[in-house]
Amino acid sequence: MERIYFDNAATTPLDKAVLDVMLPYLTEKFGNPSSIYSYGRESKLGIETARKTVAKILNANPGEIFFTSGGTESSNTAINAAVNNLGCRHIITSPIEHHATLHATDHLHCKQEVKLSHVKLLANGHVDMDDLRRLLSTSEERCLVTLMHANNEIGNLLDIHAVGNLCKEFDAIFHSDTVQTVGHYPFDLRNTPVHFINGAGHKFHGPKGVGILYINENVKIDPFIHGGAQERNMRAGTENLYGIVGFAKALELATEHYEEHSKYINDLRMYMAEQLQQHIPGVTFNGDLHGRSLYTVLSAAFPKTEKTEMILFNMDINGICASGGSACTSGADAGSHVIRAINNDPNKITVRFSFSKQNTKEEVDKVVAKLKELI
Amino acid sequence: MERIYFDNAATTPLDKAVLDVMLPYLTEKFGNPSSIYSYGRESKLGIETARKTVAKILNANPGEIFFTSGGTESSNTAINAAVNNLGCRHIITSPIEHHATLHATDHLHCKQEVKLSHVKLLANGHVDMDDLRRLLSTSEERCLVTLMHANNEIGNLLDIHAVGNLCKEFDAIFHSDTVQTVGHYPFDLRNTPVHFINGAGHKFHGPKGVGILYINENVKIDPFIHGGAQERNMRAGTENLYGIVGFAKALELATEHYEEHSKYINDLRMYMAEQLQQHIPGVTFNGDLHGRSLYTVLSAAFPKTEKTEMILFNMDINGICASGGSACTSGADAGSHVIRAINNDPNKITVRFSFSKQNTKEEVDKVVAKLKELI
Repeated sequence: MERIYFDNAATTPLDKAVLDVMLPYLTEKFGNPSSIYSYGRESKLGIETARKTVAKILNANPGEIFFTSGGTESSNTAINAAVNNLGCRHIITSPIEHHATLHATDHLHCKQEVKLSHVKLLANGHVDMDDLRRLLSTSEERCLVTLMHANNEIGNLLDIHAVGNLCKEFDAIFHSDTVQTVGHYPFDLRNTPVHFINGAGHKFHGPKGVGILYINENVKIDPFIHGGAQERNMRAGTENLYGIVGFAKALELATEHYEEHSKYINDLRMYMAEQLQQHIPGVTFNGDLHGRSLYTVLSAAFPKTEKTEMILFNMDINGICASGGSACTSGADAGSHVIRAINNDPNKITVRFSFSKQNTKEEVDKVVAKLKELI
Repeated sequence: MERIYFDNAATTPLDKAVLDVMLPYLTEKFGNPSSIYSYGRESKLGIETARKTVAKILNANPGEIFFTSGGTESSNTAINAAVNNLGCRHIITSPIEHHATLHATDHLHCKQEVKLSHVKLLANGHVDMDDLRRLLSTSEERCLVTLMHANNEIGNLLDIHAVGNLCKEFDAIFHSDTVQTVGHYPFDLRNTPVHFINGAGHKFHGPKGVGILYINENVKIDPFIHGGAQERNMRAGTENLYGIVGFAKALELATEHYEEHSKYINDLRMYMAEQLQQHIPGVTFNGDLHGRSLYTVLSAAFPKTEKTEMILFNMDINGICASGGSACTSGADAGSHVIRAINNDPNKITVRFSFSKQNTKEEVDKVVAKLKELI
């Protein structure tokens, strides 16, 4: 059976061109990057070239880019460092963050008695900037603000500059989980008021098991994982060499084709929204579809019926891959905390469709036709 | 120029058969293992099959095996958990541990005021068991004992059962860094008195960027990296799918051929030791070469001269890869803390040669001939 993959916010297929640059490091170029002889030096060169590529694309210094095992480790590193090294005793986050943020902040709240606040959201899911200002201005402690750049379930985009400037005003540390936007949007970190951002290779046709943490050169932190001198003493452990090289290549490809792909994907998304509205009575969309929204994600809410309650299951049977919420939580499904937090209609069933450059209009037509049949 | 790779304790080339099982997961089987549809389920199946394979080989329960980004993360997880979840307020380690242990324990000592002791070593580099008993018996707090199974620089093997039983007697938590022995020795964890061990795929012809942590089912800990529900809520972050599948395959191959390969490699090592003694006047060997010693590592000490001080450099020029100490520290080289700790002769220069199944006697002959010429 043909499969249609509409869950690119969960993970994306690896680009053939990315695999091609990884393969030499999976075969003959196997040296430990910390070794000083020829094999080691060529591995080290691979990593440092990757770092320069990433830094250039994000307009950062190479010294601000650290390779990690993924977006979650990067978020944990930033959040822990803000508390343990940068004097933040009050964390401000939102109820619709990824669990990498929510669980890391909950843990610090419980174990280290750090104050924890959740900023209010507007009806469309955006952060209530007035509430954020209120929280910052009334805090008696230094704050860490950790707010995601794009929500992985409903696609809402944060105004990272507005939040960053507000943080600056109150001397707060600002971490933005940019896992859904690195490789999907241009970044200009030298001109962005943020201390930490993170990315994960597998969200933009790069490899799994590798991510980055950007640490603004003005903040000095301890490593999260202690040991060897890798990553300039900032992240110990033998480097995921092929992953790192693949990450950089995937980011390069994503950036090269950004204009073209973002338009293509957004057109697909809007086409699907329109087709759904035309064919499925009562469908609505979570988040801010026509406003500040990630071009890859369409969060559709179908009227709750016996049929829509089984919709993910029935789509799967028909070879259609989509999700109810974040992949990271679908194992232990207790429903989406994001959908709950934006106070959506309990009489709706949410399905997230998320697209990549590899999807087509024909696939959208097939999926809409199948949904029409199933609902 | 032909290269001779005698630094297999730093990292090993990936086995072709391992790459072959990884490739489907680098191409068509790309689903997020947490996703519930077909693509996700086949990824999940890959991971759970890998977990069962690893558990079976180590004679553990699959529920005791957790996949991580590598040996260093695993060690950090175990050591932090012992302090933060298992009530250990006194860490006992040795001065010749890997930096993943030393720096993690130093950090806890400084930041969380945990007591830190370093057990005495015998002249041959082995742990002084009487001193370990003394430390345990006089401790007023619950202890974490963290001692590596095999030393990565001098090859000394710990009697893991003796240490484990001693820990049991004093209700201490026992972590053994087994990065140099998983994939090199048989394990029988159901009958080994240890709470935590760890492994890294790239030490036995598996992939970099992936490791395991064994957590004995009788200890319950918090995750080190917080976020999604991966690894049964114990290690958050999208799994390094290809790495995990490759880890299991590499362990399987290593186990299948253990008898044959360990004998072959040990013979190579002893042959080289003998050849060096025959051809290089004054050479000695660090550690316990003829006793309890890792069969992959030969730590040779050459009399210090202008020529031996340049030996690593000159071997590299001649295509021979060997190291002065651990790869993880060779970047920031301040000499080896291991060699310093075993109080070796300051008039000696240490070179670690470490072997794999891919090395040959002809290579040993070539290296010895070249050393003879260079020294």
